[in-house]
Amino acid sequence: MASHLLRSAKGLLCDISGVLYDPDGSGGRLIEGSIEAVKRLKDARFPLKFVTNESQTTRAGLTAKLQHLGFSVTEEDILSPVTAVRAVLKERNWKAHLLVHEDCLPELQDVAATAADPVDCVVLGDASDGFSYAALNAAFQRLMTPAARGGGQPVGLLSLGMGRYYRQAEQLHLDVGAFARALEFASGSTVEVVGKPSAAFFGAGVKALGLDGAAAVVMVGDDIVSDVGGAMAAGLLGVQVRTGKFRPSADEPHPSVTPTAYVDDLKQLVDILLN
Amino acid sequence: MASHLLRSAKGLLCDISGVLYDPDGSGGRLIEGSIEAVKRLKDARFPLKFVTNESQTTRAGLTAKLQHLGFSVTEEDILSPVTAVRAVLKERNWKAHLLVHEDCLPELQDVAATAADPVDCVVLGDASDGFSYAALNAAFQRLMTPAARGGGQPVGLLSLGMGRYYRQAEQLHLDVGAFARALEFASGSTVEVVGKPSAAFFGAGVKALGLDGAAAVVMVGDDIVSDVGGAMAAGLLGVQVRTGKFRPSADEPHPSVTPTAYVDDLKQLVDILLN
Repeated sequence: MASHLLRSAKGLLCDISGVLYDPDGSGGRLIEGSIEAVKRLKDARFPLKFVTNESQTTRAGLTAKLQHLGFSVTEEDILSPVTAVRAVLKERNWKAHLLVHEDCLPELQDVAATAADPVDCVVLGDASDGFSYAALNAAFQRLMTPAARGGGQPVGLLSLGMGRYYRQAEQLHLDVGAFARALEFASGSTVEVVGKPSAAFFGAGVKALGLDGAAAVVMVGDDIVSDVGGAMAAGLLGVQVRTGKFRPSADEPHPSVTPTAYVDDLKQLVDILLN
Repeated sequence: MASHLLRSAKGLLCDISGVLYDPDGSGGRLIEGSIEAVKRLKDARFPLKFVTNESQTTRAGLTAKLQHLGFSVTEEDILSPVTAVRAVLKERNWKAHLLVHEDCLPELQDVAATAADPVDCVVLGDASDGFSYAALNAAFQRLMTPAARGGGQPVGLLSLGMGRYYRQAEQLHLDVGAFARALEFASGSTVEVVGKPSAAFFGAGVKALGLDGAAAVVMVGDDIVSDVGGAMAAGLLGVQVRTGKFRPSADEPHPSVTPTAYVDDLKQLVDILLN
């Protein structure tokens, strides 16, 4: 294990689901030692942000959930793709057709187009039961129409992550990536991912830590492709945790991603970072 | 135009939607000259079958629709992927989880698994409004479970066509291919296409015409990739018709498919075939 690289790390980006807790459809099931591990990092003032592709809720909702589980976190500790896409759309002055979870609509209200107006892009989140044929078709029809910004530009397709599926309450559920692929295939668009594994999202995480270089920042997560591989492609150190959806048979070793290190859990990583 | 190849053709496979009529959400809008063209082929006893990827209805339903429009056709004239997939499943002795249009359920009743039983495959058709998140998720969960036939075999994913979208009543609608891609991406399965553009489906068409070789059989359709390109890859002659969803800017010339010939409509093709 490349412990020397980890011992000289200056900041940590930490995945949430599968590292702090396992989702179970309601409150979530704590992963042993994770509350204490977060507390130790905070007490040591070790630069720390949580990066998630959670798009079924807002940062505020996620903060409340983590606090309820016993974590000492604030909204400012969390980078979510909902917040990130809002910043991207504001910067580009784009209006969006939203196909996202209803809980995210309030945070995206001021970048949403009305039903009658032309749009610049479609934004896909983990809409869950909101992925009806009618809703997908409406998004598809937007993609086949010229963009509001004119010049014959195509309507953009932005996706809050590209997850294939997630586990909740012992069942597998289709994630947003499947629907992004469906719309790509039908429309001929190319999806722009906002969230992990996009390099821009990890770069925003490094910046939020107040650090200049990615090379001294660790990203820890349970998804070897999106968390670990994505972070390493963006120049960070990537640590695979053996909790959450980690599977020994498929992830260690993994055919295309070789993490900087494997750790049993967040507690073990914090032991290394702080010693 | 390679008219000499067409003049020596011995049989015709004819697409339905976009060649005989344009779909409009209800009965369909006749394409000029198509009823008379079909009648001339029948009167001349020119070997003729209709091949369609229509999976919103059974052969019986499609026959009734064509008869209502004025065409002289019987069920035996039509090759549909619903009929084809039933034959495939019977031959393999497979039980299927069906995500198809409700109108197709009766024809597939004896190859359908009950909700409680393990399955050998998932069959996707153009379920239209039936493509809910819950229905897609149920199909996905089947794909992530070992097959009923044992030996640790994966559950197969069969799709009745791979269309991207279709036009109905002046609006574009997502077709079955988009949902097949979504399930492929999420599950890691590889889709097996039953229907156009699969070579096996065109081969079954040639056989149904009572002919031995594909080289003297013409396939005519309005989809340059699925109809024309698919047929030519299976060894048939491929004719692109300038009706239906044909678009001069994108289809003539097409970057990857060079048809044996372009014709204005079915009437013009029949003039060549019979003279």
